Amino acid sequence: MVVREEARKMKLAAPYMAAASLEMRNTALQKIIEALEENREAIFQENAKDLQAAEEANVAKAVVKRLKFDENKLRDAIAGIRQMIGLADPVGKVTLKRELDEGLVLERVSVPIGVIGVIFEARPDALIQISALCIKSGNCAILKGGKETAKTNKILFGLVHGAAVAAGLPESCLLQAELHNEIDELLKCQGDVDLLIPRGSNKFVQYIMDNTNIPVMGHSSGICHIYLDEKADLAKAVPIIVDAKTQYPAACNAVETLLVSRKIAADALPVVLEALTKAGVKLRGSAEVVELAKVLRAAGKLWTNGSKPGTADDCCGAEANGRGSVEIEVMGEEDFGTEYTDLVISLKLVDDVAEAAEHINKFGSHHTDCIITEDDGAAEYFLQMVDSAGVYRNCSTRFADGFRYGFGAEVGISTSKLHARGPVGLEGLVTYKYRLVGEGQIVGDYASGKKEFHHKDL
Amino acid sequence: MVVREEARKMKLAAPYMAAASLEMRNTALQKIIEALEENREAIFQENAKDLQAAEEANVAKAVVKRLKFDENKLRDAIAGIRQMIGLADPVGKVTLKRELDEGLVLERVSVPIGVIGVIFEARPDALIQISALCIKSGNCAILKGGKETAKTNKILFGLVHGAAVAAGLPESCLLQAELHNEIDELLKCQGDVDLLIPRGSNKFVQYIMDNTNIPVMGHSSGICHIYLDEKADLAKAVPIIVDAKTQYPAACNAVETLLVSRKIAADALPVVLEALTKAGVKLRGSAEVVELAKVLRAAGKLWTNGSKPGTADDCCGAEANGRGSVEIEVMGEEDFGTEYTDLVISLKLVDDVAEAAEHINKFGSHHTDCIITEDDGAAEYFLQMVDSAGVYRNCSTRFADGFRYGFGAEVGISTSKLHARGPVGLEGLVTYKYRLVGEGQIVGDYASGKKEFHHKDL
Repeated sequence: MVVREEARKMKLAAPYMAAASLEMRNTALQKIIEALEENREAIFQENAKDLQAAEEANVAKAVVKRLKFDENKLRDAIAGIRQMIGLADPVGKVTLKRELDEGLVLERVSVPIGVIGVIFEARPDALIQISALCIKSGNCAILKGGKETAKTNKILFGLVHGAAVAAGLPESCLLQAELHNEIDELLKCQGDVDLLIPRGSNKFVQYIMDNTNIPVMGHSSGICHIYLDEKADLAKAVPIIVDAKTQYPAACNAVETLLVSRKIAADALPVVLEALTKAGVKLRGSAEVVELAKVLRAAGKLWTNGSKPGTADDCCGAEANGRGSVEIEVMGEEDFGTEYTDLVISLKLVDDVAEAAEHINKFGSHHTDCIITEDDGAAEYFLQMVDSAGVYRNCSTRFADGFRYGFGAEVGISTSKLHARGPVGLEGLVTYKYRLVGEGQIVGDYASGKKEFHHKDL
Repeated sequence: MVVREEARKMKLAAPYMAAASLEMRNTALQKIIEALEENREAIFQENAKDLQAAEEANVAKAVVKRLKFDENKLRDAIAGIRQMIGLADPVGKVTLKRELDEGLVLERVSVPIGVIGVIFEARPDALIQISALCIKSGNCAILKGGKETAKTNKILFGLVHGAAVAAGLPESCLLQAELHNEIDELLKCQGDVDLLIPRGSNKFVQYIMDNTNIPVMGHSSGICHIYLDEKADLAKAVPIIVDAKTQYPAACNAVETLLVSRKIAADALPVVLEALTKAGVKLRGSAEVVELAKVLRAAGKLWTNGSKPGTADDCCGAEANGRGSVEIEVMGEEDFGTEYTDLVISLKLVDDVAEAAEHINKFGSHHTDCIITEDDGAAEYFLQMVDSAGVYRNCSTRFADGFRYGFGAEVGISTSKLHARGPVGLEGLVTYKYRLVGEGQIVGDYASGKKEFHHKDL
């Protein structure tokens, strides 16, 4: 496939795709569901080939699990499409209607972006979700999935594309890129491709951003923080911190740094650090945190090998799996910009919410950051002053997700401030155009003062 | 000034600027009005120095006129600020409020973008308009104006900045860059500057886009079209075409190409081309247009030197100023991508509205394009299928402007599809953040099925 030529064809098809009725787009989604159901066995067979190849290539078990497309994942994928059929049309919303003057009416109407290139990780359900989002929002899309699911993606793409065309959408509404070198070709399609959405590792997304003139939506890193305020309720704090770090440590919305108010550090750290240690999290901290831990240990307030104050349950549980000692590795200031995507957390003490917000704005990636506090004033300060796509109070950073926000699905999470920010669903896949309808009006008449604008919102 | 250091300071001030109340921001605008009124004489004196320098440097008269800041322009500038005080607050709008589950509430709230760098042409009123827009929208701004108004800008900036600080806004809310090499420093401030808005020539904007990693909003070219449909009312068409081409030919929203339906070309071209010729517009056309003009001339249907069918008035007027002959220079297909910013227009014949839309999508710059027709079907097709920020029916392309749209003012016009599109006023200077407030909720409970989202819009 010559990507440039195909992208050009798609660009010409884009206005027809954008003009497709909601009924036609929803019919396409319905036909995708039917095609998936009718071809389940064939899909599972192709997926089995991908799984076998992965095992032969000694791909890690955790990764193989993600490649697998089974009855459960098919059912979830179909439920996702069904939910999307029910969502309101993102296209054709009139967000401004104004009479500039007698008989001269301005409207701002939402329209699809046009041609979108999505490069995504090896996860069969990703292809289904992304095509469904693009079809519902009236966009044409070039899809490039991870090579480890090549065979599964190929059959899925054929079914999705066939369903779309059967519903009456343009032949060129969807295109699959299958070869890795086609990514580089795609990066050169400025003018024909309106937007690129890369998903994957920090390094990969950065590579895309550095090598194209096409606008890129996404995020290269997710350095999320939790600030444990002096008025924090520790009964809420501990489960939130453990969930945010351990529920899925490889996710971009997992917490990387815990900031703790100095005023409560001596009381709060033992509880929090013991819980994190018990959950298998490796601790790294500023010199101050490491020193404080020493003092706490000496005072018998923090787990050490063989000695554990606190409840017998905790003690035995921890000792039983050999994690009886809270150990903290010392780290430098510059390390607070590190995304671990692993069971590791950075620790630092701060004076108050103001210092916490400053640290986050300096070292964070403007993704999602949380304050744990019962103090409304501190919370409001944090939510206002922290400059991130998601600012949270008393809940896990892991909630930053299109499905959890009720967007049906997401094409990615944006840490950019322009266009869409945070989890990006259907609304992030549309732009708008201004429609101005007159009866022969010319600007000369307004410049000369012969006529005047009256700007009446309708 | 070391731009990088100042930008870093501004970045730290940005959350405080973003938190400034509407009252404080409006007070700043009010104080700017007072400062301008109290210092009018000093402003005019500094402006006189700029004008003198420009005259000594033999700057073109038309440009000198634009540099001038007199009573009229001061009055307009003050009226503009007063209008902006009256506009609704773009910050703090809640555009989504949803209970994800019991006690877990998501809000999407509009917030300022942060730090914006604006590089603009030598026009004293531009500095006032741009600072007012940034203050009202809670953004910090680095301003670099054209060097020909350096002295005027310096005094204006001092007054504007003083007023902002007197109203209680952060010292670092506004910064003036005065030296040309500071533009290149500004381009390297990624991480501290969130957005660049360059205004000026095609070449200059392209230079900015090619030399920075900071997101850029603006447009490098404005290739606007008018399509004269077979059902056009020529009584409307002629004034619209002449206005769109001649009312301000250097503007980006001036028309560059006229597409004419073949079905009416023989009747419409004489009227339109004679009007354009009379208005001093140089004509360029496809070989087909040039051939048709020959046939029309031979049939006595188009002006030639010394022979003019039609009204005596037109004839004499045209002959009197020596433009009695309609001459068309032949042009190649590739030339349809040229922006003249001068009294020159390209001409081409097309079969119908579909071919017109295809031409515009291929050669246009997605700025503003217009159809002239009395046919609702053709109009709807055009407004739907043309992929531009502004799609017009029966009015001049020159209406594409923030003031004319009722936005108070504009920082520029965007031909990008992401974020803001078309004239960009206050709404284009804000983004949003998601605020999620819970009572200790963790994702693990939802992943395990212990709890379920109910997504209730509030």
